Amino acid sequence: MNYDPRTFRALTFHDAIPRFRDGADTPRAYLERCLETIAAREPVVKAFAARNDDAARVAADASSARWRAGRPLSAIDGMPVGIKDLLETRDMPTQMGCEAYRDNFPKRDNAAVWALRQAGAVIFAKTTTAELGGSHPPATTNPFDPSRTPGGSSSGSAAAVGARMLPSAIGTQVGGSIIRPAAYCANFALKPTQGGINRGERQSTSMSTHGPHAGSLQDMWQVAIEIATRAGGDRGAPGLFGPPTPPAPRAPERLFVLETQGWAELDDTSRSAFEGLLGQLARVGVTVQRRDDHPLIEALERAVADARELAGAITGWENRWWQRNLVDQYPDGVSARAKAGLAKAEAMTPDDYRAALVRRQLAQVAHAAVGPLADAAIMLSCPGPATPWSGDVPGQPLAPRPTGDYVFNAPSSLLFAPAVTMPLMAVGGLPVGVQIMGQQHEDARCTAIARWMMGAVAPVSG
Amino acid sequence: MNYDPRTFRALTFHDAIPRFRDGADTPRAYLERCLETIAAREPVVKAFAARNDDAARVAADASSARWRAGRPLSAIDGMPVGIKDLLETRDMPTQMGCEAYRDNFPKRDNAAVWALRQAGAVIFAKTTTAELGGSHPPATTNPFDPSRTPGGSSSGSAAAVGARMLPSAIGTQVGGSIIRPAAYCANFALKPTQGGINRGERQSTSMSTHGPHAGSLQDMWQVAIEIATRAGGDRGAPGLFGPPTPPAPRAPERLFVLETQGWAELDDTSRSAFEGLLGQLARVGVTVQRRDDHPLIEALERAVADARELAGAITGWENRWWQRNLVDQYPDGVSARAKAGLAKAEAMTPDDYRAALVRRQLAQVAHAAVGPLADAAIMLSCPGPATPWSGDVPGQPLAPRPTGDYVFNAPSSLLFAPAVTMPLMAVGGLPVGVQIMGQQHEDARCTAIARWMMGAVAPVSG
Repeated sequence: MNYDPRTFRALTFHDAIPRFRDGADTPRAYLERCLETIAAREPVVKAFAARNDDAARVAADASSARWRAGRPLSAIDGMPVGIKDLLETRDMPTQMGCEAYRDNFPKRDNAAVWALRQAGAVIFAKTTTAELGGSHPPATTNPFDPSRTPGGSSSGSAAAVGARMLPSAIGTQVGGSIIRPAAYCANFALKPTQGGINRGERQSTSMSTHGPHAGSLQDMWQVAIEIATRAGGDRGAPGLFGPPTPPAPRAPERLFVLETQGWAELDDTSRSAFEGLLGQLARVGVTVQRRDDHPLIEALERAVADARELAGAITGWENRWWQRNLVDQYPDGVSARAKAGLAKAEAMTPDDYRAALVRRQLAQVAHAAVGPLADAAIMLSCPGPATPWSGDVPGQPLAPRPTGDYVFNAPSSLLFAPAVTMPLMAVGGLPVGVQIMGQQHEDARCTAIARWMMGAVAPVSG
Repeated sequence: MNYDPRTFRALTFHDAIPRFRDGADTPRAYLERCLETIAAREPVVKAFAARNDDAARVAADASSARWRAGRPLSAIDGMPVGIKDLLETRDMPTQMGCEAYRDNFPKRDNAAVWALRQAGAVIFAKTTTAELGGSHPPATTNPFDPSRTPGGSSSGSAAAVGARMLPSAIGTQVGGSIIRPAAYCANFALKPTQGGINRGERQSTSMSTHGPHAGSLQDMWQVAIEIATRAGGDRGAPGLFGPPTPPAPRAPERLFVLETQGWAELDDTSRSAFEGLLGQLARVGVTVQRRDDHPLIEALERAVADARELAGAITGWENRWWQRNLVDQYPDGVSARAKAGLAKAEAMTPDDYRAALVRRQLAQVAHAAVGPLADAAIMLSCPGPATPWSGDVPGQPLAPRPTGDYVFNAPSSLLFAPAVTMPLMAVGGLPVGVQIMGQQHEDARCTAIARWMMGAVAPVSG
C-alpha cells in the first residue's frame, strides 16, 4: 500500500473522453469500474457517508446516451463526483459527520451540486467529513496506510480520490480542510480564491470555499470552472476567473517560498525533501526567493506568523451562534471536541472578532504587496506525512488535531488566496503535497504553474 | 381608520419598564394586551403566518419572574417580537410565503432569533412575507386602509407594528423590504449597515439585512443592539456599532437631500409635503443641500440613477441557482411572478453580474465622497402612500410591483448604508415615511438624528 510518487497513477476522467466519443467506452462503464474499486477499497478506507448507486447508474446511462449522440452537456458529462457531506444533495442525506444531523435530509441541492448536475456530472455519493467541518474525525482511513488519518475535514473526498475510487470529489476549506487532506492522500486539489465558487446554503463563515479534489490537474480545473460557469461565485464576489478548459502549463520566472509558522515544527525529512524540490526549480531556471531575500517577503511571513490561531479565532466566532443553537437543541448530539471549540469561541467578544478581522486585512495587504515580486508562492501543503490516528483514549485529554495540523493551510485561507496542491513528494512511503499559492483571482495561473511543475520537476522521495 | 401623524400613538415597550420594575405591570400582562389587539385587528390585517401563543405565554411568565426578581436579561426582556417568516424559528414553521415551503419546519433558530431569546424577548409569531422576500404579496392588508398594500416584503412585520399588535418585529431588506413597508405602515425601522446584524442561515444575497420595525426609536435601537451584542454581525463584517442604549437625540448641522430616480415619479402632494418638512428643517437651522448645490451630491445622484434596476439585477443573479432548484423541485410551488423574475436573472451571464458589482462599488465610492459634506442624507422612504391592491386579475398581465416601488430604498441597499425611517408625513390620510441615510457604520448617528427630528419637526399632512 505504500506510496511512490513516481509510479502512483490516480484515476482520471479527461483522458477517457476520446473513447466516449468513439464509443469504445461509456460513462456507465466508467462508473461500474469505480464501483468495482469501491467494492475492493471502501471496507477499509470508509470514505463514504452515503451512496446512491441506483441514481448514479441512471445518470451515467443518460450521460452515455448524450455522448453517443454527440451532445454532451460539458467536458465533465458523466464524471462521477463525490460530494462532501456538509453540502446538501437532493437525493442523499446531509449528516455532516455529526450525531445531531443524523438522518438530516433536506432534499435540496447545494449550488455547486446543482451546477454539477447541470453539467451532466454523476452525483454519486456523499463523502465523509470531520464533524461539522471541524476536527472531530470520521472513521475514514488514509488510503496509503489505514493506521493514519486521511486528513480532514474533507476526509472522504481526499481518501476516495487517493484510493482511486473516484476521479474527483468536492471538498471545503475554512482553515485547511481541502489542501491538507489532499496532500495526505496524493490528490491534486484547488482551494479557490475566496468567493470563487458559489457555496449555496453554506455561507456562514467568511473564509470557507468549495473546491475540487481530483486525480489530475485537468479534471480539477474542469470541475471548478464548470461549476463557476453555471452557479457563479459567492454573492458579492466576481467568481472564479479563468478559461473554460484547463490552463496550459506555464513556467514561472520567479517563485517565493512562504515558510509560515509551520517551518519551525517541520520534521527534517520533509524539510529536506522540500528543499530538494526547490533545488530542482532553481536548476531549471526559476528564481526562488525566501524571507531573507526581500523585506516584503519577511513582512508577509510576519503578518501570517500566527495564522493558525487567527484563522481559528475568526471561524470559531462565526460558527458560535449556530453551534450553540445546535448544542442547546441536541446536548448529546455534538462531540466533546466541538464543544471545547465552542467554549473557546464563546469567550470572545464582538471587539475581539473585529480586531481579528483587521489583522486578517493587514495580512492581505502584506500579501498584495509581494505580488510584483513573483509569479506565485510555493509552500508545503502539510507538515509532513499523515499522522497516525487510532481514536481518542477514554480518560485521556482529547488529541488536539487528529486530522493533522493546518499550519501550512491557514495562510491561504486568511489571505483569500487560491492554492493548488500537487502530490510531488513522498516521506516515509506516504504522500506529502506541495502547493502553489497565488494572489486573489489568480486561480488559473496557479493551475498553469502546477501543470508546468508536474512536467518539469521530478517527484522527491525522502 | 385613517392616519393622522399628530395623534397616532404606536405601541411601545421601553416606557413600560418602570412599571415592570415596580410590579404595576408585567410582560405577561403586556403580552395579553397584544393578544387582545390581535383578536380585534388580525382578521382584517392578516399579519401573521404562524403564532405560538402558548410558548409566548410561557416565555412572558418567565420574563415576568425575572423582572419581579430584579434580574431581567436585558432591556428587551419580555418584549413580544414578531419574526418575518423568512427566518427560521425552532418552534414555528418557516414557510416564506411560498407554496413550495408549506409546512417547512427546520426546528432551528436564526441567529437573530437566537439572540433575541438570549435577551429574554418573547418570540411570539411569524409575520407574513412576500413570497421568498420578493414581490408576490401575502394576504396582509395595510392597517390604515385594507384596500391597500402594507408594502413588502416585510409585510406582516410592518402591518403588525402599524396595527399596534406588537411593539416590534424583525424585517429583512434586500431592495426595499424594511424601509418601504415601515413607511406605509407608520413604523419606525432601521435598515442597518450591510453586515450589521448576523443573518444566520440567510446569507445568500450580498445586500440583505435584518432590521427591526418598532413603534418607537428607542425600541427599534434596543432590539438591534441586543441582537448584535449577542450574535454579532455577518461573517466578515465588524457588526453594528453603537451604544448599548438608544443614542441620545442629536441635531444635525447639515443634511443633503438624495432625490433618487424616484423624484421624477413622485406625486405632487407627497413632494410638497416633503418640501414642507425640509422647510421646517431650514427654519430650525439645519443647512439642507441638494444636487444643484454641490457637484459631489450631483455625482452621487448620477451614480444611483438606476439603483432600482441595478439592485434588481444583482439580487436576481444571486437568487438564481436556488430559485431554479426550487422551481425544478416544485414546479407548481412558486408563483408566476417569481418565475418571471427568475427567467430575467437566468438571461444574465457571470460577466453581467461582475459588471453590476463594479457599478455598485462605484456608487459606494460616490457616497463615501459626500461624507464630509453633511451629517447624513434625508430622503423619502416611499413614493407616496401605499398603493391599492386587490389581487392579480386572471388573464391580465401581472402587476409589476404589488407591494409598492422600492425606488427610494434601492440606494441605501446598494450603498450598504444604514437608514432609519420615521412616520413624519401623511398624504391622503395614509402614512408616508421619511428616512435618514448615513455613511456605513453610522447607524447610531442616523438614529440620534431621527430622535432629534421627532422632537424638532412637526409631522406634515398633505
